[in-house]
Amino acid sequence: MSDLAKQSLDTSSAAATKLLKEQIENLLPQLPDWVVKNVDSVERIEKVYTFKDFNAALSFTNQVGALAEQEDHHPALLTEWGQVTVTWWSHKLGGLHRNDLIMAARTDQLD
Amino acid sequence: MSDLAKQSLDTSSAAATKLLKEQIENLLPQLPDWVVKNVDSVERIEKVYTFKDFNAALSFTNQVGALAEQEDHHPALLTEWGQVTVTWWSHKLGGLHRNDLIMAARTDQLD
Repeated sequence: MSDLAKQSLDTSSAAATKLLKEQIENLLPQLPDWVVKNVDSVERIEKVYTFKDFNAALSFTNQVGALAEQEDHHPALLTEWGQVTVTWWSHKLGGLHRNDLIMAARTDQLD
Repeated sequence: MSDLAKQSLDTSSAAATKLLKEQIENLLPQLPDWVVKNVDSVERIEKVYTFKDFNAALSFTNQVGALAEQEDHHPALLTEWGQVTVTWWSHKLGGLHRNDLIMAARTDQLD
């Protein structure tokens, strides 16, 4: 288990600040195969998980969905035959919060 | 129920031809809010369904997934908080087959 995955989400408004580029780079080594993508000037963290068929992919989507509901923090989940693309970001901040990287680490634990 | 939704999929190899632009335009009036999108020169048909929260969206994703498994024809399903974007196309053909429009009509019946 990575250190990140063990951490609790910080949902206080005082914690509502985007990560700086340097902070992201320091945490990324704990998140293998996750990549930071800038979509419409919003940084997100994304990973593609592969599976043997559609049902296995959909099953993973549901697992990530349950994790998201548990923390009331929701990703975008693109389910296709044999793969799921998981994308985390903080909608309100318009970018990446430390919570997103914690959720990414927890997503890896489901795989 | 639209006429399209009542039709069976044609899975014979002889039927493996892409729809012509005119054929798509003739069928689209039966598919409200579905739009044809060209992604990397591959035509797809796409619709965004909205829901009250994440769980309702994920529930719809599972319904479409069950329909897809039943016909062994699979879409891309982008699940987000309050919405699901459903995209149908025929991977092998690299474009739209009549089957994709039938599946789009059947997706509407689930909503």
